Amino acid sequence: MPLLFEPVYTEGLAQLSYVVGDTAAGVAAVVDPRRDVQVYVDIAHRSGVRLTHAIETHIHADFASGVHELAARLPLRIAGGAQGGYGFDFQPLADGDTIALGGIRLQALHTPGHTPEHICLLLQDDHQGDAPFGILTGDTLFNLDVGRPDLLGEAETRRLAAALHRSLFRRILPLGDRLEVFPCHGAGSACGKSIGDRRQSTIGNERRFNPALADRPEDRFIDWLLADMPEPPRHYARLKRLNAAGAPVTGGPPVPMPLSPGEFAKAAPQAVVVDIRSMLAFGGGHVPGAISIGLREEFPNWAGWMLPDDRPLLLVGDGPEDVAEAALQLYRIGLDRVEGYLRGGMNAWQNAALPLAHAAQWSVRELDERRRDPQVGILDVRSDEEVVKGRIPGATHIYLPHLEARLNELDASRTLAVYCGSGYRSSIAVSILQRHGFRSVANVPGAWAAWTAARKEVQ
Amino acid sequence: MPLLFEPVYTEGLAQLSYVVGDTAAGVAAVVDPRRDVQVYVDIAHRSGVRLTHAIETHIHADFASGVHELAARLPLRIAGGAQGGYGFDFQPLADGDTIALGGIRLQALHTPGHTPEHICLLLQDDHQGDAPFGILTGDTLFNLDVGRPDLLGEAETRRLAAALHRSLFRRILPLGDRLEVFPCHGAGSACGKSIGDRRQSTIGNERRFNPALADRPEDRFIDWLLADMPEPPRHYARLKRLNAAGAPVTGGPPVPMPLSPGEFAKAAPQAVVVDIRSMLAFGGGHVPGAISIGLREEFPNWAGWMLPDDRPLLLVGDGPEDVAEAALQLYRIGLDRVEGYLRGGMNAWQNAALPLAHAAQWSVRELDERRRDPQVGILDVRSDEEVVKGRIPGATHIYLPHLEARLNELDASRTLAVYCGSGYRSSIAVSILQRHGFRSVANVPGAWAAWTAARKEVQ
Amino acid sequence: MPLLFEPVYTEGLAQLSYVVGDTAAGVAAVVDPRRDVQVYVDIAHRSGVRLTHAIETHIHADFASGVHELAARLPLRIAGGAQGGYGFDFQPLADGDTIALGGIRLQALHTPGHTPEHICLLLQDDHQGDAPFGILTGDTLFNLDVGRPDLLGEAETRRLAAALHRSLFRRILPLGDRLEVFPCHGAGSACGKSIGDRRQSTIGNERRFNPALADRPEDRFIDWLLADMPEPPRHYARLKRLNAAGAPVTGGPPVPMPLSPGEFAKAAPQAVVVDIRSMLAFGGGHVPGAISIGLREEFPNWAGWMLPDDRPLLLVGDGPEDVAEAALQLYRIGLDRVEGYLRGGMNAWQNAALPLAHAAQWSVRELDERRRDPQVGILDVRSDEEVVKGRIPGATHIYLPHLEARLNELDASRTLAVYCGSGYRSSIAVSILQRHGFRSVANVPGAWAAWTAARKEVQ
Amino acid sequence: MPLLFEPVYTEGLAQLSYVVGDTAAGVAAVVDPRRDVQVYVDIAHRSGVRLTHAIETHIHADFASGVHELAARLPLRIAGGAQGGYGFDFQPLADGDTIALGGIRLQALHTPGHTPEHICLLLQDDHQGDAPFGILTGDTLFNLDVGRPDLLGEAETRRLAAALHRSLFRRILPLGDRLEVFPCHGAGSACGKSIGDRRQSTIGNERRFNPALADRPEDRFIDWLLADMPEPPRHYARLKRLNAAGAPVTGGPPVPMPLSPGEFAKAAPQAVVVDIRSMLAFGGGHVPGAISIGLREEFPNWAGWMLPDDRPLLLVGDGPEDVAEAALQLYRIGLDRVEGYLRGGMNAWQNAALPLAHAAQWSVRELDERRRDPQVGILDVRSDEEVVKGRIPGATHIYLPHLEARLNELDASRTLAVYCGSGYRSSIAVSILQRHGFRSVANVPGAWAAWTAARKEVQ
Repeated sequence: MPLLFEPVYTEGLAQLSYVVGDTAAGVAAVVDPRRDVQVYVDIAHRSGVRLTHAIETHIHADFASGVHELAARLPLRIAGGAQGGYGFDFQPLADGDTIALGGIRLQALHTPGHTPEHICLLLQDDHQGDAPFGILTGDTLFNLDVGRPDLLGEAETRRLAAALHRSLFRRILPLGDRLEVFPCHGAGSACGKSIGDRRQSTIGNERRFNPALADRPEDRFIDWLLADMPEPPRHYARLKRLNAAGAPVTGGPPVPMPLSPGEFAKAAPQAVVVDIRSMLAFGGGHVPGAISIGLREEFPNWAGWMLPDDRPLLLVGDGPEDVAEAALQLYRIGLDRVEGYLRGGMNAWQNAALPLAHAAQWSVRELDERRRDPQVGILDVRSDEEVVKGRIPGATHIYLPHLEARLNELDASRTLAVYCGSGYRSSIAVSILQRHGFRSVANVPGAWAAWTAARKEVQ
Repeated sequence: MPLLFEPVYTEGLAQLSYVVGDTAAGVAAVVDPRRDVQVYVDIAHRSGVRLTHAIETHIHADFASGVHELAARLPLRIAGGAQGGYGFDFQPLADGDTIALGGIRLQALHTPGHTPEHICLLLQDDHQGDAPFGILTGDTLFNLDVGRPDLLGEAETRRLAAALHRSLFRRILPLGDRLEVFPCHGAGSACGKSIGDRRQSTIGNERRFNPALADRPEDRFIDWLLADMPEPPRHYARLKRLNAAGAPVTGGPPVPMPLSPGEFAKAAPQAVVVDIRSMLAFGGGHVPGAISIGLREEFPNWAGWMLPDDRPLLLVGDGPEDVAEAALQLYRIGLDRVEGYLRGGMNAWQNAALPLAHAAQWSVRELDERRRDPQVGILDVRSDEEVVKGRIPGATHIYLPHLEARLNELDASRTLAVYCGSGYRSSIAVSILQRHGFRSVANVPGAWAAWTAARKEVQ
Repeated sequence: MPLLFEPVYTEGLAQLSYVVGDTAAGVAAVVDPRRDVQVYVDIAHRSGVRLTHAIETHIHADFASGVHELAARLPLRIAGGAQGGYGFDFQPLADGDTIALGGIRLQALHTPGHTPEHICLLLQDDHQGDAPFGILTGDTLFNLDVGRPDLLGEAETRRLAAALHRSLFRRILPLGDRLEVFPCHGAGSACGKSIGDRRQSTIGNERRFNPALADRPEDRFIDWLLADMPEPPRHYARLKRLNAAGAPVTGGPPVPMPLSPGEFAKAAPQAVVVDIRSMLAFGGGHVPGAISIGLREEFPNWAGWMLPDDRPLLLVGDGPEDVAEAALQLYRIGLDRVEGYLRGGMNAWQNAALPLAHAAQWSVRELDERRRDPQVGILDVRSDEEVVKGRIPGATHIYLPHLEARLNELDASRTLAVYCGSGYRSSIAVSILQRHGFRSVANVPGAWAAWTAARKEVQ
Repeated sequence: MPLLFEPVYTEGLAQLSYVVGDTAAGVAAVVDPRRDVQVYVDIAHRSGVRLTHAIETHIHADFASGVHELAARLPLRIAGGAQGGYGFDFQPLADGDTIALGGIRLQALHTPGHTPEHICLLLQDDHQGDAPFGILTGDTLFNLDVGRPDLLGEAETRRLAAALHRSLFRRILPLGDRLEVFPCHGAGSACGKSIGDRRQSTIGNERRFNPALADRPEDRFIDWLLADMPEPPRHYARLKRLNAAGAPVTGGPPVPMPLSPGEFAKAAPQAVVVDIRSMLAFGGGHVPGAISIGLREEFPNWAGWMLPDDRPLLLVGDGPEDVAEAALQLYRIGLDRVEGYLRGGMNAWQNAALPLAHAAQWSVRELDERRRDPQVGILDVRSDEEVVKGRIPGATHIYLPHLEARLNELDASRTLAVYCGSGYRSSIAVSILQRHGFRSVANVPGAWAAWTAARKEVQ
């Protein structure tokens, strides 16, 4: 049983990497590794294989790649699309190039679109016959979605979208319905508009079910694809640069220092305080000035977007496990400056009689009752694509990432009720408004989901 | 290396059980096992020993014993103090009786006091010489404390306290300073007034450091001991009966059913809803009518005290791990009717637009600012022993366990700010007040700890 | 992300079961569960779903099903093919019947062949479109193989093979290349002749690569399929009966008792002693009379074949973990009478000066040097299908499972060198010969694999 | 509950390190850390403390210290006895010096004897009163034994033994019976002659039960102590130098490369092949030239003694877990050159038809039957201290560590049966004899233990 094929799914990033190899020959490669790489070393050891290659399908924008952490530990070769322009020594894979791992072969298929250098990897096993049985599609083809071509700037977008059309329709679909598809992302990643649930598929299933693969000429494909395309997360450009240059090798995530409430209060002004608890816990009480980004939901995406990489980060969580998990997730997106956390959490803070800020949490019923009060304003922080489908009557709209730059558009004298899709992003927004001196702000847990579930009036 | 001596510490209960045996002879006993017994089976298997005995030092009042779960799985003998009055077949251990486990010997020392049938177990190993090297003291002697003698009702208390004096001063102390002491509880258990941090000690260290072992005649010992003795938790009597009869064998904790928000809302009126999240999360928003008992602090103690054993329990937590942990902890104290939990937690509840209740969380600063407002009342729910050392000026005092019975003493038309030592118990109190229709109640996170840390005025 | 689809692979059995459900609706089913079911309960709890069904694709022959263990713990329904003739209450699934789990649907496809009642389950997810994306094929279609139709006795074999042809070519292949295939077994299972490495595939990949799906008329398919079909393992009939009646509910594998060397020696004559160590360790020294069945290779298959279900089993292993693993694996195939194991392993046995038996281990070089010695006989214990491709010159052939019945064909006065494919089965054979008084027997590690690797003469 | 006191026991080394600190103050120290330090980082994180010190009680001889691995990861201070002569920057602790960790205090007690710079650490907790409750005794006082004073060479031995007498009788015993004793080693370590089972004790228990603490004048103590003192393991001097200089920081144990049988056979001549399987498995078949040092028994001690630190090591084990465990254990004693292992173990080797060596395994019965045969010689490889108590009649005695240097004393033309206490060391001896061309050697499993158990004739 020589085929080794082990997908590694990383929650939060909704990312898939793969260990592929031949246990009879004792060799394997890792494709698209995350930055905390022990998992690959362990799989390799357990399987009795030597990792000979760490392969990038493309320069990732949403996470810090682990190829350099692997190369620092093991005598392996980093490989990637020949047109990659990687700022380090690597084995370039041109279209058709093959990496043989015993009887297993990975053959590069140059598939520009999501990025110019993107390669897919055809997956062949001598024991399965003389043709590939599957394809690692990276960020070119996902379940029910395709890779977004707009991450390199507007100038490139249509050109990349056209390339994507060719890659999908002329290179991938012709491979045949039977091929299994193993993508780099699952649902929840912002590398697609709306990736489906499944972490694998087949070319035939995607041909049938994936709306992007409907039969359209190139131009209409491009228009369709770019319509409703959400704005790219701000940190994607930073991570592109990081991965193009090679993420720094640190041996693992930082060990944040425990800080007493007093130490924490003293360190906070020089740092960004991140409260990783749930929105309701943040609402009940929090360290004044903290940014609310809940760990248990879309943490890496919004932490990436909202947090700086050049200032110390201090964490407030429910316990050491959560703090360690947050430090790990931040490390995965290249935010390594987690320097401390509040020891004993909010209990310790409270017991030390340090000031406690609150954020009101209004159910949609409360919002509905109060929304006609002239002292109440409503702020919708969802994306354009969401707002266009309907909003709460009278709501002002500023997409969360733009909030800090557009605060002057808001009336700080009124109570501001903020909502998004579920309350998660509006809790971030509320925390930002509080940092900027807004005295009376309320988050709306449930938010748009609850508003529509309750069949309230929609504008 | 024949001696097997493995203490098992159970968080929450702050309880210590022991696996003691001889790996050369291949036999061992468990002393004071908790109800989820796989841990002992695993230790025994890993050590290559057969569990031949499950021994009770006494009838426990604070947790459901695991001796019957063990006896249901393994062909072992339950043993206990000869005067135990256990309602099942057991091997009675009279003073001086010895259980030999290969070259290891456990010799019973009848030490009435905490309970009449209590035995300690002298621990001897043939490889360590011809005398015991230690003693398992059960609930007779703890680090810096002794077992409370008041759990069998007032009529017995002084008689038991006198017996305890004799057990301590005539039986245990004379064994000599050098003996190691292995008790049944660590800090946090209510089986003592104020148990110390250490989970082991020596007779000499306790003789020197333990305030209960100061040289006092019997009468003064009794007075000293009973002074400031906190009220026994309400469930202790229930658990005494359970353990005297033998806790039912279920094979493990119940598997609570996931309930959708709609199902949960429908089931709630016939059940008791327990919110196991932190006080601040409860404050930010909760299911109306839920009782707040935070999992991460003194959960088993207060769940035991506040929850019924004859009604279904429904849980609201931060995720499935917390729910499973809570179900386990409840199982350990004989509360087996955990029938369901809110699937998706509060997020699902919010998104379904179900009603959200709040509990204001006042810092001590806010309390201090508002406390002279005639519309504000202050309620102290700490125990008598705590209140006697000082309280916030003007506070009404009702110990939390008595709150439900004394609601009529409170003025529901005023805003009621509730505090305890840290906010944990007052959060429970706030949830009870809300269940009984109090509209305006506030918890005080930090509570007395913060009030004194901030050097506020004390009455 | 409502789709829950979690395959559970069980090493040893090379078996795949599946948890399939809808996390939004909070319901799921288990398909083809193994007998130790905690893994499914854990997946369900972690995913927030209720297990509503335990489904059998067919009456399994190679492992004891876990449907009854699940039904004993959870209020779920056992379902299976309508023509199942199960000896217990179950929900019959006729061709076309559907179990809806929220937006996920499992539709039965009656596919007789491996067994008459066999059903496949089409797998549809409302979020993936209006057609199935995959199929759970049970023991009908594997990677590179199909289910064997010869397990119900010779009378049924050709009729079942014909039904299998229809199921494959008229029911499954027409579903289309794009469908993903999720079988009940991977490589190593004896439910197929020669199952491929992959634990999933697509209909198109199998149509292209699977030799059984080559375009052949029914008759030639049957001939092709039955040619070279290995003999069915002896315990398959026993497990069929067990699963048809419902495997007994025990709550988990037995806890084997540790036995001292003396106790073990005393208990051994009434029991079957199973040595689960490697062939070389067995060779170096073993308890006289022990049967050698190494845990780390094809244990469940050969344990099933060689061990009785009506006598106590005693284990000799390298440590408690191995013993527990063996007890678990035996439990999975319905061998529950593991009553004890040798505490301290062979070291304890040796130190107690108990008799030590040996089994010579000849490399193929040694065998080659000695094989012309008239005092040396060679015994090949491989199956007919293997032997027909070549054997060592002069070797007598008796397939291992028949050895005990055909001992009289062997000359006990000569040294007997026994080989199989790798030495694993011949180590079993050697142990059986020793039990029957053969004084001079040798195992050949490497065996046929080494013989051919060394390019020795072949008959 | 501020006291953090967590012993970390390391199997194999039989070593105890300690994390001691104050969770209220958020600080802790590690005492005598092993080289794989993640365990301490995890304890600290879980407990919410910062590790501020890594303390050596003395320069260890039996394992590579982890103080430098810790210092490379965390901003902490290395501390040790002021007379340490450490070759790196450290905080010197003179007699009476105290490290305060919040309310916990570690006070150095200079206790020369095992080594000149040795310190014990008195352990005081403000919550336990104004005096120490325990003492970390390092290698000065163990359960039932004391630290050996002969590791710095004969010239120092009596002087150190005298110092040890003073340290024990004038410094430690006067502290009082009640103090708890926490040593650096448990049973199995060669840092004492015969350390007892218990990993903790009290001064009083040791005063009563420890034979070294019997009331003897200094001279008689020295004579008693040095009588029967086994020879110091050869690697102790190497490790002394390593720790005095500071063990190299590598970030963890090496990741050994999997080698195919062919690669392994090719690499073996330049390396030392270590077979970590059991003696019986080695007996059944092994790679020619391999040294047998079984992982599951006294591996670190004998690996340290028998293996070079300047040549590559190649491992043969039962699976990847065992290989990783061996690499870790070798790393702990400063043997970092584990460069590869035999992928697929002996099965792969056999299947490749590579040569298989054997080592006969004679039970004591077989030995007894053959021992008068003039073609059979008997070799006893136990230590002088063991042999003096009796041996098998006619046995030649060469202590295992001297075997390689004294091969010329043996008659290679005879069959040599080798024994030790249990067969473990004689298996090593047999492998060495085979490496040096002895053709006919046999190990005696059970060895002296079995010989005496069988009441055979003793010389």
